Amino acid sequence: MAQILDGLKVSKDIKSEIKLEVDKILAQELRAPHLAAILVGENGASKAYVNSKVKDCKEVGFESTLIRLSDTVSESELLDEIKLLNENPQIDGFIVQLPLPKGIDQELIINAIDPKKDVDGFHPENFGRMALEMEAFLPATPYGIMTLLERYNVSTKGKNCVVIGRSRIVGRPMSILLSSKGDPGDATVTLVHSHTQNIEEYTRKADLIVVALGAPKYLKKDMVKEGVVIIDVGITRVEDTGERGFHLEGDVDYEGCKEKASWITPVPGGVGPMTRAMLMKNTLLAYKRKI
Amino acid sequence: MAQILDGLKVSKDIKSEIKLEVDKILAQELRAPHLAAILVGENGASKAYVNSKVKDCKEVGFESTLIRLSDTVSESELLDEIKLLNENPQIDGFIVQLPLPKGIDQELIINAIDPKKDVDGFHPENFGRMALEMEAFLPATPYGIMTLLERYNVSTKGKNCVVIGRSRIVGRPMSILLSSKGDPGDATVTLVHSHTQNIEEYTRKADLIVVALGAPKYLKKDMVKEGVVIIDVGITRVEDTGERGFHLEGDVDYEGCKEKASWITPVPGGVGPMTRAMLMKNTLLAYKRKI
Repeated sequence: MAQILDGLKVSKDIKSEIKLEVDKILAQELRAPHLAAILVGENGASKAYVNSKVKDCKEVGFESTLIRLSDTVSESELLDEIKLLNENPQIDGFIVQLPLPKGIDQELIINAIDPKKDVDGFHPENFGRMALEMEAFLPATPYGIMTLLERYNVSTKGKNCVVIGRSRIVGRPMSILLSSKGDPGDATVTLVHSHTQNIEEYTRKADLIVVALGAPKYLKKDMVKEGVVIIDVGITRVEDTGERGFHLEGDVDYEGCKEKASWITPVPGGVGPMTRAMLMKNTLLAYKRKI
Repeated sequence: MAQILDGLKVSKDIKSEIKLEVDKILAQELRAPHLAAILVGENGASKAYVNSKVKDCKEVGFESTLIRLSDTVSESELLDEIKLLNENPQIDGFIVQLPLPKGIDQELIINAIDPKKDVDGFHPENFGRMALEMEAFLPATPYGIMTLLERYNVSTKGKNCVVIGRSRIVGRPMSILLSSKGDPGDATVTLVHSHTQNIEEYTRKADLIVVALGAPKYLKKDMVKEGVVIIDVGITRVEDTGERGFHLEGDVDYEGCKEKASWITPVPGGVGPMTRAMLMKNTLLAYKRKI
């Protein structure tokens, strides 16, 4: 029976550690780290994400600024806001909550963020620095997974790892980090995706599997070997008849897989809270690099 | 018996195509594309590489400038040279020949190159753009391999590809490009390296293998399956009793492997000339983006 990679617990530890550092900073009469977020439009999920980030800032003692723009904002107005944040010495890092309304070029917007303040790690310069194994802001979800493995001393050195899904924000960076030098790291990584034939052939041999597909209960017990480590990045809202009208489901058939896995992340309470904590960590890093 | 992926022939085709474009440019009374190279010190191999790049420029009709600096040059003097090239509107692209003498921070130097003139594709911003599947200058060797596969219509979509070696200039970018969208591309890629256990288990199942280890005759016949495509990136100088005192050897036991492979690159005449041609291609791209 699998042991739990408890992302909720570890994320709380990390936030406590950050809070301690902030307390020390304030005791030196320095200003607190400051994260800003730009939210465009009224997307419900985006609002919820940004609000939780503001809440996290409060919890760890950061300043936060939320900039809300109408979904009729023009690309050049949004670029102006980014320029202000880039130039504002009081802001250590900022994010532009995605997705952006149609008609706004997401790539253009992300590329306009000063890489030194790009705490989401989405700017090409940060992404390239990560891939070249230089110091960088790592994208929050892969960074969270690496940290979770590290805290539980789950070694990946020389292990056969399979990453399912090649998205820019999870699968691709995850495959790079797991195969970079270090431990966690130094793994033999196969990146599988929509064009892969016989995904089961890869997953059945894997010592560690990261699933980031957004396909509820995709990974089944018969697709994995005994003792595998399973990281579930999926969070899909599945409608139900309960009070909220939906519940969250991961990409892993948890009940089945936990019988064979040595370690497994639950959903919720696994990768999700780690992702949130790592944004705080990146903001603290941005602050420390500047001071 | 394998068919040859003839890099020498294809590189000549590409250089002819570039020459044609340059002829058209000159016919419009525009200036020719202009590549500059900085060579520090007296390393024999580096001198030979840079000279061949100058020769390639001449062949395709580019202007070229070779800047030679003593190996006692300071980091700040080298940075000054880079700044001049960044700011010179007559220079479309430039390279700093590696390796640099001890005491000079290679990372610092590469990061100082304007990404718009970084025709080697080594700057983090270009590397990140590549990994994020945005338009970028691709590193010459992986770009050359992708082009060679394309010209011979060797499809990689859905294929099981193994890249051996995780260097910044070949293995890592190769693994990214083969698993990016497109064809060549859309492959299931496993990146194996010094920490991988039982490399043969991976290579024996591979439809395509890229070997970039620098270990002469590493890949043997019994490590590959019938019909495999083999790309040999290795070029090691092996001493012999002949007139030159050495010959070049690839990472593939060519005589053995060619019996089983469907396609194979020779050494020399495979990846090497493609790498040279792609630097010219990138310089033309840099010119066209500017004009």
